[in-house]
Amino acid sequence: MSARRVALVGGATTKWGVRPATWSELAQEVGAALFRAVPALRADDVDSLFVGAAEPERFAFQSHVAPLAAEQMGLKPHRILQRTELACASGQSAIRSAYAAIAAGLSDVAVAVGIEKMNIPSMAEANTAMGCVMDRPWDGPHGATAPPFFAMVAQRHMLEYGTTEEQLAAVSEKNHRFANTNPYAQFYEKTFSRDKLMRLPLVAPPLKLGDCSSMTDGAAAVVLVAEEFARRYSDRPAWVRGTGQYSDFHNLANAGSLTDWVGLKHAAREALSMAKISVHDLDLAEVHDCFTISEIIEYESLGLCAPGEGGRFAADGRGDVGGELVVNPRGGLLGCGHPLGATGIAQAVEVYQQFAREVPAARQAPDPEWALVHNLSGSANVHSVMVYGPKGGA
Amino acid sequence: MSARRVALVGGATTKWGVRPATWSELAQEVGAALFRAVPALRADDVDSLFVGAAEPERFAFQSHVAPLAAEQMGLKPHRILQRTELACASGQSAIRSAYAAIAAGLSDVAVAVGIEKMNIPSMAEANTAMGCVMDRPWDGPHGATAPPFFAMVAQRHMLEYGTTEEQLAAVSEKNHRFANTNPYAQFYEKTFSRDKLMRLPLVAPPLKLGDCSSMTDGAAAVVLVAEEFARRYSDRPAWVRGTGQYSDFHNLANAGSLTDWVGLKHAAREALSMAKISVHDLDLAEVHDCFTISEIIEYESLGLCAPGEGGRFAADGRGDVGGELVVNPRGGLLGCGHPLGATGIAQAVEVYQQFAREVPAARQAPDPEWALVHNLSGSANVHSVMVYGPKGGA
Repeated sequence: MSARRVALVGGATTKWGVRPATWSELAQEVGAALFRAVPALRADDVDSLFVGAAEPERFAFQSHVAPLAAEQMGLKPHRILQRTELACASGQSAIRSAYAAIAAGLSDVAVAVGIEKMNIPSMAEANTAMGCVMDRPWDGPHGATAPPFFAMVAQRHMLEYGTTEEQLAAVSEKNHRFANTNPYAQFYEKTFSRDKLMRLPLVAPPLKLGDCSSMTDGAAAVVLVAEEFARRYSDRPAWVRGTGQYSDFHNLANAGSLTDWVGLKHAAREALSMAKISVHDLDLAEVHDCFTISEIIEYESLGLCAPGEGGRFAADGRGDVGGELVVNPRGGLLGCGHPLGATGIAQAVEVYQQFAREVPAARQAPDPEWALVHNLSGSANVHSVMVYGPKGGA
Repeated sequence: MSARRVALVGGATTKWGVRPATWSELAQEVGAALFRAVPALRADDVDSLFVGAAEPERFAFQSHVAPLAAEQMGLKPHRILQRTELACASGQSAIRSAYAAIAAGLSDVAVAVGIEKMNIPSMAEANTAMGCVMDRPWDGPHGATAPPFFAMVAQRHMLEYGTTEEQLAAVSEKNHRFANTNPYAQFYEKTFSRDKLMRLPLVAPPLKLGDCSSMTDGAAAVVLVAEEFARRYSDRPAWVRGTGQYSDFHNLANAGSLTDWVGLKHAAREALSMAKISVHDLDLAEVHDCFTISEIIEYESLGLCAPGEGGRFAADGRGDVGGELVVNPRGGLLGCGHPLGATGIAQAVEVYQQFAREVPAARQAPDPEWALVHNLSGSANVHSVMVYGPKGGA
């Protein structure tokens, strides 16, 4: 088996937040940003487009969004065009699809773009839409949308391991602090001390406002190319070195454990073994902190610390600059917001910029060589992981 | 470049029609049918699942459908799991994604499944949902949903080439006749003579009821595997030999021509040249007859006949059994119905069964070796093509 090596050669995001922009306008904006960020890229170079979008049908009343994004970005894909959907992991799915297409020889130069418009006139309708990410007929009637579900996860983790609300706040403080270095983040120029975070209103106990990622409008895009084209676009590409996914269950009645994320263990093992590295070789990780408790469990399930130690890992700053690896340096979902389909793409943009030393010093991982990107989706029933590193493998 | 060869080793569909079944129940049913159709397949063999679904968010108020389908089918994907959406071509997108993943070495045994539940308590709501396949804010206010758009295409084709309503009826008669050999088709055991078709009520002039595909509930699934696993599952695999897609525009104001489907020409040329054959080498074709006029223009854009000759091609039976190739032998979208995400998968099931000589004689292509599958999506702005044939290539 000799698939082609695949390089991520650049990317860009729009400003994220509550934006007076339509879905199409976000697509236009990220297209323009992408061409600025990758100056050698010409529209005609791009043979394929993969669009990560979770729920444009409900948030924007628009389906068939792949050709819409192509048109708005000024692209005419002549090899592959499709949208990928995997709820909160839709963006990473777009990247994985681009990677597979290039590795297989079906595409040479592909764009993966993620776009989500979540702030709409009726936020009640938007919140209802979010509910259909879970198993709606079976889990919906029990109120299992994201905040109550992850609150239940946090309660269970506290019961099993003595995790504290202060430890949750430590995650939020770090990610909001990083977001203050990122002008594209929704919560740029907003300060959240641990004390302030502890006083914010409850959303679903024990989760307070600062423990929850937000409803966000935003887009992000990256360019992936076959090895032979990498030099044309970048001197410092990030190479795709591993991928892993695992789907464990859907209906909550079939979940084995709330706090032991088996799917993440499987997905990370697969991606890391493909890259032939250990989790301790990572210099940075972009993990799915949809809620603070998620990042804590992710430390554990990734094997960065023992089960139950995630809270202390956070409080001790082991995932902070100066720690063992830098986790969520762009600001995470907590600090940047979480436009579902765009998140996975923006995480990859951060990896590229970290490798290229293009980020502010306050969040730069020292001499980064290996990075992991993780997304969960739904009720943490599906986990998706990619590993980026130096050229090699294939 | 030496990607791996990929074989389609079997597939199955549920009964299509107005089904008293939920989205999840259709997934269960097609899962069971698939395991019956491919007896050597064990659930643990399946490392990846690709789900083609166009609008479950609106038709079934359910997003994140990939893990839902996995659970209902009894699968635990541990390599790749995702949903692909490309409106009416969502199913073919799932197959293409599976093909790319296997060719790249990221998957060994993948299932591509298409599921759509379109008949819901409020059919007004279902029809409105269909409208968001087009560019809703720009084309929607002009009433550009599918039937009026394709009616406009038909009117233009009649004006330019003298195509007649009788020629449209010839397409419908053929496909409904084929559907009478297919117990899974929505219009199985319904007889439509050309005379009867001419007397059916108008939907959008000149398109009558029999010129339009229907709102259908249904599912279909196929198994794709890497070369080394093909023999385990089938003695008569259909090999993926070519793929092509083209996205031309989205907003109707940017369409170059209503009757010259440039995107199909590009996509078919790409797929056929990858397979190193000409369109005249095809023994059968499954093309996207969402409306009768579509199949007529597809004859032309595929190069089976000259521009403007498509109506005569149909009336002369050149796409019928005994003609140059057999077109839409399973009954097409007109005869089988069109559960958006399932259509592209069911077309591939037909190719497999044609190659394996498993279909009734009344629709069997003689000694088939090469087959083409085509889907259009939206306002025929995106065209997707795959070519299946004997082992070779890669």
